Amino acid sequence: MSLPLSLNTATVRKQWSLAQIIEGCARHGIRGISPWRDQIAQMGLKNAKKSIREKDLVVTGVCRGGFFSARDWKDDNLRAIEEAHELAAPALILVVGGAPEGSKDLSSARKHIRDCIAAILPEARQAKVPLAIEPLHPMQVGRACVNTLEQALDMCDALGEGVGVAVDVYHVWWDPKLEAQIKRAGKRILGYHICDWLPDTRDLFNDRGMMGDGVIDLPKIRSCVEAAGYSGFQEVEIFSDRDWWQRDPDEVLRTCKERLAAC
Amino acid sequence: MSLPLSLNTATVRKQWSLAQIIEGCARHGIRGISPWRDQIAQMGLKNAKKSIREKDLVVTGVCRGGFFSARDWKDDNLRAIEEAHELAAPALILVVGGAPEGSKDLSSARKHIRDCIAAILPEARQAKVPLAIEPLHPMQVGRACVNTLEQALDMCDALGEGVGVAVDVYHVWWDPKLEAQIKRAGKRILGYHICDWLPDTRDLFNDRGMMGDGVIDLPKIRSCVEAAGYSGFQEVEIFSDRDWWQRDPDEVLRTCKERLAAC
Repeated sequence: MSLPLSLNTATVRKQWSLAQIIEGCARHGIRGISPWRDQIAQMGLKNAKKSIREKDLVVTGVCRGGFFSARDWKDDNLRAIEEAHELAAPALILVVGGAPEGSKDLSSARKHIRDCIAAILPEARQAKVPLAIEPLHPMQVGRACVNTLEQALDMCDALGEGVGVAVDVYHVWWDPKLEAQIKRAGKRILGYHICDWLPDTRDLFNDRGMMGDGVIDLPKIRSCVEAAGYSGFQEVEIFSDRDWWQRDPDEVLRTCKERLAAC
Repeated sequence: MSLPLSLNTATVRKQWSLAQIIEGCARHGIRGISPWRDQIAQMGLKNAKKSIREKDLVVTGVCRGGFFSARDWKDDNLRAIEEAHELAAPALILVVGGAPEGSKDLSSARKHIRDCIAAILPEARQAKVPLAIEPLHPMQVGRACVNTLEQALDMCDALGEGVGVAVDVYHVWWDPKLEAQIKRAGKRILGYHICDWLPDTRDLFNDRGMMGDGVIDLPKIRSCVEAAGYSGFQEVEIFSDRDWWQRDPDEVLRTCKERLAAC
């Protein structure tokens, strides 16, 4: 039995609105959904919540809080916690942001991130919204200077209850310590995101592959997260300017299902 | 006093032959040079050696051995050791290669690499050519599946005498464990390569920046390698399709010198 499929709404965000994505998931029998906040805002939080409930979908995460390098990080993150709470999300995904513009000091930026998470943690705990630190690929250090699972877990250790990690294969598959760190993460794995790494990757952000089209050993990583105690959804998150964002979204959803079954 | 400048010949390889680069280094007062083997082959090993000696340049490395995923890896690496020996290089730089085509098994590929290095190590020791494992940026895992300094040093620990690391800021600057691992490396740092990371990087391989044009804290990393006991050259290695490979190479060399003085 494979972990069930969830659709991260970024996967078809160029083609469909959130309302259309909710309809699409229901139509294709995809039971999980992980919406982005800009799409939630566009649809309206109440409408989104109502529609997701009507279609009997499970929210597997809200994307995203974080970006602690922004001026209004605190207000924005408190709003994000509230939204995740409203949608009964099992986690608010944190893309933590990089060093402030003009700064080369990654070490201070990383300390700042930890302090910011500590500052919003009481509200997150009160709202029962776990915060999921998502380590991003080292090539995306400008968007997030938490770049390995080990680093994210060290941060979790320092922060305590209410903080975990999101494991996105795209960001962590290369890591020689991946297996050991997934094991260490254990029940702190709050989300598991899948796609593939294309050997001829042409863009640092928007050139992810569909599962099976690249070189990531998905069955192996999945078995590691399962062995660590994760029993949630597998969330497909594909940013793809050259391919999947150009296709008929019904085809994209069909393909996600087929590939998940094959992997 | 800053560590002296060496030119990795890749920096102007699109514009100049090795013979021209040797002349150029001498003309600009750059005392170190680190040639690539294809350029050595083109010039002829004897000619290269003679010309480098005549201009009183110091060879700071030979690029590259490794690529253990290739069929003829052993012969090729033994030839590379011989060439590095002839040129009195302080190290043969190893770009270790990725998983074999069609394989998704990074773990086996990494074991294979360690075994291959062990297999050529006796010849390297006999020739007094230290082997420098160069961890490559995780986005370049297809060219080298050694991707962190920690991983490279673990390999060194397993292999023993005669193996060290090359620290290229481009590949390791993002690493939260960088400082600790440079300290751990100590005298095993066999080469120190510099350039910069452009925030708007457009290509995974050939879009490096000139020192000062990006976001790497070069003075800090240099002080770490110096504190670890490294007292060799700072080798400028810039792959740059869109910028530095398009420029007058005399301007490139002048700029390298100016920027090194400024950083």
